Amino acid sequence: MSTADRDRVPKQDRSRATRQRLLEAAVACLAEHGWAGSTVTVVAERAGVSRGAAQHHFPTREDLFTAAVEYVAEERSNALRELFPEGAADRRAVVTAVVDLYTGPLFRAALHLWVAASNEEQLRSRVTELEARVGRETHRIAIDLLHADETRPGVRETVQGFLDMARGLGLANLLTDDTARRRRVVAQWSDLLERALR
Amino acid sequence: MSTADRDRVPKQDRSRATRQRLLEAAVACLAEHGWAGSTVTVVAERAGVSRGAAQHHFPTREDLFTAAVEYVAEERSNALRELFPEGAADRRAVVTAVVDLYTGPLFRAALHLWVAASNEEQLRSRVTELEARVGRETHRIAIDLLHADETRPGVRETVQGFLDMARGLGLANLLTDDTARRRRVVAQWSDLLERALR
Repeated sequence: MSTADRDRVPKQDRSRATRQRLLEAAVACLAEHGWAGSTVTVVAERAGVSRGAAQHHFPTREDLFTAAVEYVAEERSNALRELFPEGAADRRAVVTAVVDLYTGPLFRAALHLWVAASNEEQLRSRVTELEARVGRETHRIAIDLLHADETRPGVRETVQGFLDMARGLGLANLLTDDTARRRRVVAQWSDLLERALR
Repeated sequence: MSTADRDRVPKQDRSRATRQRLLEAAVACLAEHGWAGSTVTVVAERAGVSRGAAQHHFPTREDLFTAAVEYVAEERSNALRELFPEGAADRRAVVTAVVDLYTGPLFRAALHLWVAASNEEQLRSRVTELEARVGRETHRIAIDLLHADETRPGVRETVQGFLDMARGLGLANLLTDDTARRRRVVAQWSDLLERALR
C-alpha cells in the first residue's frame, strides 16, 4: 500500500462523517426553524463545519436540504425494517411504528421542505421527485411488514390510504402534542386494517 | 328613518363587502405564495382595497390571515352541509365531498398558515386555537353526514381517522395532481368505512 493510499482512507472517513453531520444538522434545522430560517450558514455552524466545507459537500441550499431529507428518510426506513427483522407477526405493532415515522422531526422537516417547494420553482421538481421516491419506498416497506398481498383487489389502496392517514396524523401533531388522541385512532384503525387485510 | 340611519345600512354593506374581499384575497394569496409571500399590502392590492382600509379591518397580518382561513373554512362547512340537506343516503358521496374539502385552495392556505405557526410565536397560539375550532366543526359535520353513532365504541375514532386520512390526501396533492390515485384510495376506504359504520 502506498502512503497516498494509506492516507486516503481516513480522509474519506472524515469526509463522510462531515457530510453526515451536515445532513443531520440540516434536518434538525428545518424541523426547528422551517425553510425560511434554514440556510447553509446556519447548518454549517450547527454541525461545527466551516461554510466552505459545507459548500464543498453541497454547492447549493437546495442540494443540502433535499439530500438531508432523503438521507434521514433512508435511515428511518432501515430502522423500521430492523424493528421487524422477520416481517411482523403483529400488524398493530407495525401500524404504530409506521405512524411514529410521521410524527417525529423527519416528518416535520419534510413538511417544511414540501410546503416551501410548493411556492419555490428551484425546489419544486427536486422535492417532487424526492417525495415520489421516499413514498414508494415507504409503501414497499408497509406492504412487506403488514404481509399485505397486493395481488388481491383493494389491498394496494388499503395500504396507501393507511399511509395517507399516517401523514395526516403527522400534520395533526405539528402544533400540539396529539399523542393521546392519535393512540386511540391508531388502535381503532389497526383493527379495521387487520380485518381488511386478513 | 333618519337620514343617518338610511345612510348607515349601505355603508355597513360596503364595509362587509370590503372585509369579505380581503378575506378571500388573503386565502388565495396564502395558497399561491405561502406565508412568506403574503403581506397585508399584497392582499389589499389583490382585493382592490387601500392599505389603510385593510388595516382598519385587520390591524395586524396575523389578524387578517387567521380570520381569512376561519372565514373560508366556515363557508366550506356550510357548503358541505348544503350539499346534503337531508343528511346523506350515500356514504361514499359524503366521503368524496369531505376529501374534496382537503384538496382545494383552502387546505393549501391553511397548511401554509399551520407550518408558519409552527415556527412563529405570534401565530402559534392563534392558529392552534383556530385549528381546534375548525377541526371540531368538521368532525361534527362528518359525524352527522355519515350518520355515525358516536355512542358505539370505536365510531368516534373511525371518523377521526378518516379525517386524518383526508388531511393526508390533501398533503399528497400539494406538489402534484394526485387525483387519479386519490380516487382509488377514496373508493376503497369508502367501502371500509361503510363496513365499519354499518
